[in-house]
Amino acid sequence: MNPPATGGFLCYNYIMSKLEDIVSLCKRRGFIFPGSDVYGGMAGTWDFGPLGVSLKRKIMQEWWSFWVDQRDNMYGVDAAIIMNPKTWEASGHVATFNDPLVECKECRGRFRADKLVDGYGEGITDEEFLAAGAKCPTCGKQNWSEIRKFNMMFQTHIGPVSDDEHIAYLRPETAQGIFTNFKNVVDTIYPNLPFGIAQQGKAFRNEISPRDFILRDRECSQMEIEYFVKPDTWEAEFEKLRAEQHEFLEQVIGLPKEMIHEYDVPAEDRAHYSKRTIDFMFDYPNGEEELMGLAYRTDFDLSNIQENSGKSMEYRDKNTGESFVPHVIEPSIGVERLILAVLSAAYHEEELEGGDKRTVLKLPENLAPYKYCVSPLLKNKPELVAKAKEVFEILKQKYTFVTWDDSGNIGKRYRKQDEIGTPKCVVVDFESLENDDVTVRDRDTTEQVRVKVREI
Amino acid sequence: MNPPATGGFLCYNYIMSKLEDIVSLCKRRGFIFPGSDVYGGMAGTWDFGPLGVSLKRKIMQEWWSFWVDQRDNMYGVDAAIIMNPKTWEASGHVATFNDPLVECKECRGRFRADKLVDGYGEGITDEEFLAAGAKCPTCGKQNWSEIRKFNMMFQTHIGPVSDDEHIAYLRPETAQGIFTNFKNVVDTIYPNLPFGIAQQGKAFRNEISPRDFILRDRECSQMEIEYFVKPDTWEAEFEKLRAEQHEFLEQVIGLPKEMIHEYDVPAEDRAHYSKRTIDFMFDYPNGEEELMGLAYRTDFDLSNIQENSGKSMEYRDKNTGESFVPHVIEPSIGVERLILAVLSAAYHEEELEGGDKRTVLKLPENLAPYKYCVSPLLKNKPELVAKAKEVFEILKQKYTFVTWDDSGNIGKRYRKQDEIGTPKCVVVDFESLENDDVTVRDRDTTEQVRVKVREI
Repeated sequence: MNPPATGGFLCYNYIMSKLEDIVSLCKRRGFIFPGSDVYGGMAGTWDFGPLGVSLKRKIMQEWWSFWVDQRDNMYGVDAAIIMNPKTWEASGHVATFNDPLVECKECRGRFRADKLVDGYGEGITDEEFLAAGAKCPTCGKQNWSEIRKFNMMFQTHIGPVSDDEHIAYLRPETAQGIFTNFKNVVDTIYPNLPFGIAQQGKAFRNEISPRDFILRDRECSQMEIEYFVKPDTWEAEFEKLRAEQHEFLEQVIGLPKEMIHEYDVPAEDRAHYSKRTIDFMFDYPNGEEELMGLAYRTDFDLSNIQENSGKSMEYRDKNTGESFVPHVIEPSIGVERLILAVLSAAYHEEELEGGDKRTVLKLPENLAPYKYCVSPLLKNKPELVAKAKEVFEILKQKYTFVTWDDSGNIGKRYRKQDEIGTPKCVVVDFESLENDDVTVRDRDTTEQVRVKVREI
Repeated sequence: MNPPATGGFLCYNYIMSKLEDIVSLCKRRGFIFPGSDVYGGMAGTWDFGPLGVSLKRKIMQEWWSFWVDQRDNMYGVDAAIIMNPKTWEASGHVATFNDPLVECKECRGRFRADKLVDGYGEGITDEEFLAAGAKCPTCGKQNWSEIRKFNMMFQTHIGPVSDDEHIAYLRPETAQGIFTNFKNVVDTIYPNLPFGIAQQGKAFRNEISPRDFILRDRECSQMEIEYFVKPDTWEAEFEKLRAEQHEFLEQVIGLPKEMIHEYDVPAEDRAHYSKRTIDFMFDYPNGEEELMGLAYRTDFDLSNIQENSGKSMEYRDKNTGESFVPHVIEPSIGVERLILAVLSAAYHEEELEGGDKRTVLKLPENLAPYKYCVSPLLKNKPELVAKAKEVFEILKQKYTFVTWDDSGNIGKRYRKQDEIGTPKCVVVDFESLENDDVTVRDRDTTEQVRVKVREI
């Protein structure tokens, strides 16, 4: 999947990245740990460590900068995670956000019925399931309960009474926090169409069997935009957003073009109200999976809210005086999916000249947790350490994302910085003391050049 | 509370800011809306609108930059909101994170018993409550249930079975997500003491009666640091962090020094394990309230985790070889409390020369949603609009946070930009076409100067 990198190696042997290797590196180097690990874990949750937070923050900031800050017609919101439950009745989540749950009567194991039988979606019936003859993956028996619909929204209760009247849900998507604030934004900002509302935030799905690392977790961060347009302009706006998604993924985030594939969802697989949906698929280590979606949702959501709240969601055109419910195009992306795509594309194992092997994260410079690592060649020479500290302070002032490493020998430090994706290692040696220069070693080519300190 | 601003006004009349005025401005201008407003609301939740998100992001980024990015010994984590429930047993939240709940048997109203009786804390007994003779604030009767302890953690269930074994909680604080990752950070980064772990994220408290705008909401964002130190150095480190808190609040966030008051919590009011706690109080419109806390927590949390998880939380000193559980100092702040402090300090109503009144948010430049607003003097003169657009594009390239306004007349635009805290309004008039200059009007002094476009 990863295209072999070129240049810099006489002897080069490209090894396919595997999900397990990425998971292992993430844990070993402080990118991503299993959630609540110290207490034996919490299935489907993950904790970001120091380097993972850095990567996540940079990715989320690049998205916000590209889609919101740099534009004149995009507005942010940050809605509460716990919303009025009418939101989820109106959106259809209470009725239909279900997975088909089946229980093994022998061992009490619980499974998604559609995952035990090839080629079935949520609509699988008891008859179809039994006819397929699935055996329990845990105990091997074939003694199944009836299939029941399991709603994937986490439920809780608001206030001191835990009755049905006080049920609330953790939002299963950020999108509804945008739609419910549509009128607030229009009434305070008076934007012209087309305009978008963007939101970043957590969303929760009570998966029956969370799996595939951070791809199918119970808690994730989403970055969603609802882009409101005049109904008759949707096709042109859809094409613009489609091109901009590629620009974002490829130019800003640096994902290789050839690992992204558009899947134009055919009419029979689309939501009934959508006239067009493109899934942007990515070559993950375990196969092609959805990275993000671009969906034309007509006026479905705003009209639903209008009907269920009794409040008008109409927009009044300032020039024509015409009032109508705008149509919507939704670019939606999961932060964790994007992080795993970035890690998958960046992860390389390489054989070096002489047979040594190295693991290297070829992260784009704008996403790497550190831009520079500064080291003294030897840590027991005070004059080298002092000079290196001086260089460190200069670079830290200038670039902020600078780390210090004086552990082990220089070879080990390079291996470590390769693994965490630091583009440049700056080493201070005895020549540095005389010439005020340093060795700068490139992560991708492993080439070293001498540079004056002031020219870094 | 707000000190009168000086300069720029011949006739100046300072009017005290009130919470209601701030709430009203926040809604009117798109800073903060009641949560789920379109569906009749959701008590204790608030949605940030376009300007509120901008302010919130800037405040959170300034904090992260000051406390994490600019330092060499501070590491970020981003733990899941849903943690293994053992976390909250070990921390004591399951047993003691309670409010005393009392119910009126006449009208079924539910209240916090300690809030109906002056001068009582959580420990109020049934006898004390009855003796105080409180009447129901809703129906005026005096027919009370017994007091019961109401746990403020939101409860949910993980996976498809809703039984006691699968109970999970929404975290009531971010701190435990740091402590549970202490060993992960030590094992992957090998930092020297002292070092800190920082986290920003949502926390949830099922308040019986949420109130005071965003001060006591059910869902808030926290910014917490656990700073790990050698036990015998805690006093010196505490003093350093205390000074740095002032630096952050006053220099970075721009809160007036005289609105911040330290409250050195006396021994009898501190948690039993804490040898020192300082609450940083702020003059909010409705009175002095806690803005943030600085607490020395000894080894209480790590030792608890060690005991409950059976895993060692000891840190091994690289130089001395000595192993011990580090002690902790915790600076903790709620984002919403900080936002309300910033808004309270910034909110001014002023009487202008001639008797006009204006409301102005004197936000620091680094926090204002927009740095500049660009306008054509008249919107029906295409040559002015074209020139203004040109100026807008130049400033947008340079400063990003630039807005365009051609609504109403120039006076109304100034009032609007004053209300949202834009430091400078740039106006393009007929002279601009000849001289390539513009009028730059200052928010705080209302003074106008002519400046060449390239010199802005």
